[in-house]
Amino acid sequence: MHTTSDKKLIEVCYTPGQYPLYEGKFDLVVVIDVLRATSAITTALHYGVEKIIPVGTVEEARAFKAKGYITAAERDGQVVEGFDFGNSPYAFMDEKMKGKTVVLTTTNGTRAIQLAASKCTVVMGCLNNLDFLCQWLIERHENTLVLASGWKDKVNLEDTICGGAIANTLLETRRFRSNEDSTVAAKFIYRSAREHLLSFLRASSHRRRLIQLNIQQDVKYCLTLNTVPCIPVLKDGVLVRLDYHPVNTEYAIKTPFSSHSN
Amino acid sequence: MHTTSDKKLIEVCYTPGQYPLYEGKFDLVVVIDVLRATSAITTALHYGVEKIIPVGTVEEARAFKAKGYITAAERDGQVVEGFDFGNSPYAFMDEKMKGKTVVLTTTNGTRAIQLAASKCTVVMGCLNNLDFLCQWLIERHENTLVLASGWKDKVNLEDTICGGAIANTLLETRRFRSNEDSTVAAKFIYRSAREHLLSFLRASSHRRRLIQLNIQQDVKYCLTLNTVPCIPVLKDGVLVRLDYHPVNTEYAIKTPFSSHSN
Repeated sequence: MHTTSDKKLIEVCYTPGQYPLYEGKFDLVVVIDVLRATSAITTALHYGVEKIIPVGTVEEARAFKAKGYITAAERDGQVVEGFDFGNSPYAFMDEKMKGKTVVLTTTNGTRAIQLAASKCTVVMGCLNNLDFLCQWLIERHENTLVLASGWKDKVNLEDTICGGAIANTLLETRRFRSNEDSTVAAKFIYRSAREHLLSFLRASSHRRRLIQLNIQQDVKYCLTLNTVPCIPVLKDGVLVRLDYHPVNTEYAIKTPFSSHSN
Repeated sequence: MHTTSDKKLIEVCYTPGQYPLYEGKFDLVVVIDVLRATSAITTALHYGVEKIIPVGTVEEARAFKAKGYITAAERDGQVVEGFDFGNSPYAFMDEKMKGKTVVLTTTNGTRAIQLAASKCTVVMGCLNNLDFLCQWLIERHENTLVLASGWKDKVNLEDTICGGAIANTLLETRRFRSNEDSTVAAKFIYRSAREHLLSFLRASSHRRRLIQLNIQQDVKYCLTLNTVPCIPVLKDGVLVRLDYHPVNTEYAIKTPFSSHSN
């Protein structure tokens, strides 16, 4: 039996703009941008990219490009002109990227990463690494904030569902507790969505926007669960793969989602 | 059949802090502060209070008090020292209040009212006037924003559920449409909650806070559906009762909630 004082916090913040209302109580921040920044970062590090340098602005990314870096820049769902890539996860599944350093800026995700970077341990979460990440979070057992990237400071469905899934899994261990209504609400949105994730997200404004951009394949990839046993962690401003080897190679945690949600 | 262009917007904004991200597209704003400002205002005008002057600060309320006004001031769930009332709905169900003007300031609700006051028609919503309000909103058929008061700029469950119920009812007429994920998410939170509203809200941080303050009776009152056929509307900065007489005295709209949620 865990008493309240043993329990660590798990909370979900919906947007970077609300982060100042939450920060200060947490040792660990999980940044989420399911469509597509954190899915792409997780995928890239899993497939062999060595480092990702997240930067806030296109100008900073341009400065790195001028120095010869591989640069990826996305705004409003599209590759910014003059850059090598945007934030499609598929762009990083390439033999030629192995061992490379990539500089990345995205509409929402990189801002969230930089916000959280100052004091806490910062890792990346997405649906692709969900159970692997949850297992590590439970073992780590720290006051944990899920910071959703949202869409231009408004809440978005896919990040809220992913955050709700993490909160639900951690709370079920009874080693975590939550004080915020945002966390309770995210948990209930996840529970509404888990049986039919893709049809649920059909209602998402962000997904509608991405479909217009013809990146249906990316959306399907980003909404697929547990494909990538990798946790990106921020070290000195650079994202690298966390050295984590769970005893079970099959993840012990099984976050309930319908198995054929895609 | 209504085409997209015929349809009016219905969106839900979770906090006053996010209002600037939404404003500008709407003709009508419904301010919600279920626990307890908008429930108290609706109740007060229904039971005979003639006018309510919402003010943002305790200092403004004090200035009115010095001029001899009946003043109500709530901060953090409690009556502010030196004031006649806080925001308990029961305080306004009094023969002596009939025909009176009341000056009111609350932690979250009055700020939301003042934010929205500039350009739009502004009305008050709560669970007590839910179906009556929805019927009027459908007849009015304008671009409608539900502005939840939240709790100190964070989302709260009870306002989100109430906003989700309004959005759900308006969208089901097919005469309204929604573009925002916040609206979709609110709708799904309402759908999760409607079968067991009170037990759902047991998870709410705000309700926990209010229980500590021993206002269980107020909470129960504010979570009771359709007790007060009254819509407060802001006219020249003053809240008065909207002159609305639906043809059906039994509300035509029935928002599904479990009948014995209390």
